[in-house]
Amino acid sequence: MKNTFGNSLSVTLFGESHGEAVGAVIDGLAPGIEIDEEFIASQLDLRRPAGKISTARHEGDKVRILSGVFNSKATGTPLALIIENENTKSADYEKTRYLARPSHADYTAQVKYRGYQDYRGGGHFSGRITAPLVAAGAVAVDMLRKKGVYIATHIKNLHGVCDRDFDYLKNDIDYLNSIPYAVLDENAKEKMIAETEKAAAQGDSVGGTLETAVIGLEAGLGEPWFDSIESQLAHILFSVPAVKGVEFGAGFGFANMTGSEANDPFYVENSKVKTYTNNNGGINGGITNGMPVIFRCAVKPTPSIFKEQKTIDMNTMENAVLSLKGRHDPAVIHRARVVIDSVTALCIADMLTARHGADWFGGE
Amino acid sequence: MKNTFGNSLSVTLFGESHGEAVGAVIDGLAPGIEIDEEFIASQLDLRRPAGKISTARHEGDKVRILSGVFNSKATGTPLALIIENENTKSADYEKTRYLARPSHADYTAQVKYRGYQDYRGGGHFSGRITAPLVAAGAVAVDMLRKKGVYIATHIKNLHGVCDRDFDYLKNDIDYLNSIPYAVLDENAKEKMIAETEKAAAQGDSVGGTLETAVIGLEAGLGEPWFDSIESQLAHILFSVPAVKGVEFGAGFGFANMTGSEANDPFYVENSKVKTYTNNNGGINGGITNGMPVIFRCAVKPTPSIFKEQKTIDMNTMENAVLSLKGRHDPAVIHRARVVIDSVTALCIADMLTARHGADWFGGE
Amino acid sequence: MKNTFGNSLSVTLFGESHGEAVGAVIDGLAPGIEIDEEFIASQLDLRRPAGKISTARHEGDKVRILSGVFNSKATGTPLALIIENENTKSADYEKTRYLARPSHADYTAQVKYRGYQDYRGGGHFSGRITAPLVAAGAVAVDMLRKKGVYIATHIKNLHGVCDRDFDYLKNDIDYLNSIPYAVLDENAKEKMIAETEKAAAQGDSVGGTLETAVIGLEAGLGEPWFDSIESQLAHILFSVPAVKGVEFGAGFGFANMTGSEANDPFYVENSKVKTYTNNNGGINGGITNGMPVIFRCAVKPTPSIFKEQKTIDMNTMENAVLSLKGRHDPAVIHRARVVIDSVTALCIADMLTARHGADWFGGE
Amino acid sequence: MKNTFGNSLSVTLFGESHGEAVGAVIDGLAPGIEIDEEFIASQLDLRRPAGKISTARHEGDKVRILSGVFNSKATGTPLALIIENENTKSADYEKTRYLARPSHADYTAQVKYRGYQDYRGGGHFSGRITAPLVAAGAVAVDMLRKKGVYIATHIKNLHGVCDRDFDYLKNDIDYLNSIPYAVLDENAKEKMIAETEKAAAQGDSVGGTLETAVIGLEAGLGEPWFDSIESQLAHILFSVPAVKGVEFGAGFGFANMTGSEANDPFYVENSKVKTYTNNNGGINGGITNGMPVIFRCAVKPTPSIFKEQKTIDMNTMENAVLSLKGRHDPAVIHRARVVIDSVTALCIADMLTARHGADWFGGE
Repeated sequence: MKNTFGNSLSVTLFGESHGEAVGAVIDGLAPGIEIDEEFIASQLDLRRPAGKISTARHEGDKVRILSGVFNSKATGTPLALIIENENTKSADYEKTRYLARPSHADYTAQVKYRGYQDYRGGGHFSGRITAPLVAAGAVAVDMLRKKGVYIATHIKNLHGVCDRDFDYLKNDIDYLNSIPYAVLDENAKEKMIAETEKAAAQGDSVGGTLETAVIGLEAGLGEPWFDSIESQLAHILFSVPAVKGVEFGAGFGFANMTGSEANDPFYVENSKVKTYTNNNGGINGGITNGMPVIFRCAVKPTPSIFKEQKTIDMNTMENAVLSLKGRHDPAVIHRARVVIDSVTALCIADMLTARHGADWFGGE
Repeated sequence: MKNTFGNSLSVTLFGESHGEAVGAVIDGLAPGIEIDEEFIASQLDLRRPAGKISTARHEGDKVRILSGVFNSKATGTPLALIIENENTKSADYEKTRYLARPSHADYTAQVKYRGYQDYRGGGHFSGRITAPLVAAGAVAVDMLRKKGVYIATHIKNLHGVCDRDFDYLKNDIDYLNSIPYAVLDENAKEKMIAETEKAAAQGDSVGGTLETAVIGLEAGLGEPWFDSIESQLAHILFSVPAVKGVEFGAGFGFANMTGSEANDPFYVENSKVKTYTNNNGGINGGITNGMPVIFRCAVKPTPSIFKEQKTIDMNTMENAVLSLKGRHDPAVIHRARVVIDSVTALCIADMLTARHGADWFGGE
Repeated sequence: MKNTFGNSLSVTLFGESHGEAVGAVIDGLAPGIEIDEEFIASQLDLRRPAGKISTARHEGDKVRILSGVFNSKATGTPLALIIENENTKSADYEKTRYLARPSHADYTAQVKYRGYQDYRGGGHFSGRITAPLVAAGAVAVDMLRKKGVYIATHIKNLHGVCDRDFDYLKNDIDYLNSIPYAVLDENAKEKMIAETEKAAAQGDSVGGTLETAVIGLEAGLGEPWFDSIESQLAHILFSVPAVKGVEFGAGFGFANMTGSEANDPFYVENSKVKTYTNNNGGINGGITNGMPVIFRCAVKPTPSIFKEQKTIDMNTMENAVLSLKGRHDPAVIHRARVVIDSVTALCIADMLTARHGADWFGGE
Repeated sequence: MKNTFGNSLSVTLFGESHGEAVGAVIDGLAPGIEIDEEFIASQLDLRRPAGKISTARHEGDKVRILSGVFNSKATGTPLALIIENENTKSADYEKTRYLARPSHADYTAQVKYRGYQDYRGGGHFSGRITAPLVAAGAVAVDMLRKKGVYIATHIKNLHGVCDRDFDYLKNDIDYLNSIPYAVLDENAKEKMIAETEKAAAQGDSVGGTLETAVIGLEAGLGEPWFDSIESQLAHILFSVPAVKGVEFGAGFGFANMTGSEANDPFYVENSKVKTYTNNNGGINGGITNGMPVIFRCAVKPTPSIFKEQKTIDMNTMENAVLSLKGRHDPAVIHRARVVIDSVTALCIADMLTARHGADWFGGE
């Protein structure tokens, strides 16, 4: 197996929560594209836990680029970046080492890796690994913007509190990308934070739904059958921890629609083909039609809660009770939004590289 | 690009609706596994349009195996199978050739293939291509059964009419695999058929939701990050035409849950690890935990409807009106269930082959 | 495993010598390129056994295209082609079924496929499978010619009889592609045929060396390290049965050279960069430098000989003696040349597709 | 493109000669295998320039493992390792920056990367990148030894000075792996060193041939056609800088043989199948037959020589003259032997992982 996504522009992830460092290798970058380390840092800031509603682990998440960049530009050879792990209190994890945290990967890792996994802080399954993923994604986000492709994600639903729908997409996208907590409706945002704090106060956590829009994407991107754009996007979206559902356009809403309600009729305006509605989320037959690509991800509540939980001791194979302590988020959804943007950008940049060739993003 | 899914057990698809033949190549089969042509035929029967609620195109869908089978057993070399296209009334499609059917792939194919695509009957995007996919999938379904892994899919929701939940899974799976119209509750089935016929009478179509259960699957299958079992399954599930959403376990229901509601506590029973609930659909951290794998697919209404629709003429690039005639389904969801089973089986068989090696399915 | 070569333009092979049909699926073709069935047939003619020096099995090798072509042009979707097997005298092979032919794949197939392989005529290992490979390759050869890239292969050495070196490459390439027995020096050709007939008269066979030139290839093609052009070409060249060595430029001759003899100094002529010598065979650091790409393949003598040979009975696992009868070639090298051209073209077309994008070969 | 080799056990390389660090990511390791850092260091020692016959650049080449190892055992998740670059005199390279060193990758990199490449010391094309490759390979070499598979490489020919043939393979392999300069015949070794020093004294360099033996490899490994063991090994062997030819068994020697001379007759001894000769280098039909796998690589003379050479200025695109100074090897072949062992081990470990499943190397 390879922890690699993408064929033309690929990203390989490595690292454990409490190991030496986490990192990523990106390959297939067009020579000459600018690598904006400040933008990478600002994307990492969006992912970083902050404030009352996030875990107390604070790290600089300083990215060190080891290769593939020369004079601030991509050389076209593999770009390796690492983020050193610091502030790793391993001792926290020893006591509960054999107690499988429910809905975490502890038990499945124990089976798959036969006891050899680094169990500290979730090891390779830790959300910590999304840091290099976001750093790699930042490069892709930046590449796409320079080609007129813009991505943004907002919290559509947090434990029942809903944001307004996307409206003027370009404005909404610009707005979302300028704020740390990605909600369009200020009022909904306050309620979401309150809802999260309420859960935190109870030692509990909350789930939600993220909605993403991609605009400026050319028509004709994607493949029929196995490499449909939905297949490729869903593949990488389901790599993001806590994502348990992905739907495009009307998604599960299609179940209650008729064809005449669901179909998106075409029209021509100023020689550009559009559709009156966008129930298909900008995708027909697995291929973009030039309308905005819209999808939603279901994000499950953070499994780390402070309430007592039933579980097993994987060493004795007996039933047990788990009381978690330490640093945990009552919600990850507000931090996950930049991870979703990142993987979306990586996936689309890969598809555009395949379609237009390796140098396309490099201009000229 | 490659129209291929799978690394260890792979399937490659080819064909157009009105071309010479459609087919598939499966590679990585363990030498010695039986290839049961009757079972393949019976799976194709489940996919085949039948009765008032399906299109009037009837074909034998006779599978011809060209290679990879010797004395009714897989040799271990690539198994190629084809189904000849017959009864292809091409003339039907000439008149409306340039009118992009809304929510079909006509327009996106025109952009992607620059006018060179075989436009007859949807060409390579036709549901017809699911015939060899089901034939290939039948081989995988059969392989898995012999290893104690059983798959079944039912119509959970058809335009608002809901089937009952899965109950005793083994019984439900056996029942579903014995009936052509996959609904557990006989009463719901009648209502679904009535709903479909009502839509048909109006020249319209209906969508729905399919729910799939996989039992008997070992714990520890899947990879962290990019090749999580959710990533791999979603990849191939979104290859199935009309699938616009995929959710595992509680899926989008997680959005309104707290961690304490959502988490699946572990317990040990007769030395076997189980969870009290299965909100995670048998998957933690992208890896199976030994509980049943449960997921649902949103299926959009068949885009081919007989109501007049607005569209464009792709030749003149002017607005136009489309009135479809010909053979079309008011619903595909009852036929899609076997396609979902097929791709699920292909995906899982690929993962098991990767984990246990090429000969594992061959026994000894 | 996948019997597939190429990532951007890929070819998948299937079939057994005495099965129903052999075939190939090509994916990633640019929409709109012409598929010249006559050219495909003419390439197959070059591969077909003919005359006294080749096996007596004569087949039409008629290619049937099942998909991916519409109005004689590639649609851009997978192109599947098959060649039916006819004239398959299976009975010939029953008697010696368990006697492993030395230097053939009989024994290794028996181990790998655990006795389930189709043993008739070498099954999937038969040179027969090069027929669809040549058919697929013909499409690539044709694509490349239209982009100014020309390939030809000659017999450099047949059992010690040597052809002259390449001279004016374009002339030599045109000449070789116009003749069925690819030798530049008419005199050498006569001697080679005599040598082959001499071996045939003794129930023996002969090996040799094929030399290939590719001209018109742009500089900058290939990747550093794992996907160097040498790596990719060698990968597919070693797929050709009987090829046991591949060398680029001076190849093994480098062993006896100094750096000052071996290096190819650069110069500029009419703004074009050239090298005074071409010991590196047009490749520096795994990447084309714009000079002709030159390589040679060692082709072992056909293992099927009529002399009595020691071997084992794979059923009884005892020592045995084998006397082959039937249809066999005293040399395959004159037929292999078109296989080498084919795989070279497939490999280069894949690399150009990766570099320039999927539509590049489609022009406009 | 991906700088990755292997599907089941994969290695990804990154780094530039004068960048921050060079490194590799290995994925697909069986959980629980020991990671012997001392052995890794000792393999790196074999690669490291030493003595009069190698470049004067001395570095610790200290490997830092960032992930995938816990308590000195592989966890089964990606193992990332880096080697920091120190002692990098960049200034050396500025003066001759635009002068393409003949037979180096300077010109091809300039074309491929359009001037954005890190040109210092060959950048990503530098032999320096073989350091992490050897480190990764050491893990594979060690894994294989524990499964009874042993690999060694000797200098068969250095500028015309030849070592003796392999004899008792196990003894020879053990001997070669115990000495830094891999020649079996002590006398030949002295002559080779003298030959190298002679070239060095003239500011020149020498090429040669490396011969590799792999013993203990099971029969049945490899695939027919595109993933033959020859295809896979040649793919990675041609990734090694300076390798310009690869031949298996008799290789190019087959050209002058008849079938009756070339074929390797089988016999049974103590229930084990063997061949009387091994002209096929342990491979029939692309699959191992249980005999030792034998191959040779042609290694071109180091292109960096101190004699004046004609070349071009890539900036002005005018003819120029190059006089190299700095640190350069008069031969790399004695250092390349461990690189060949490394890539051979990586390739074989990948194939064994594919065949037997991910946990096979982990024992139990």
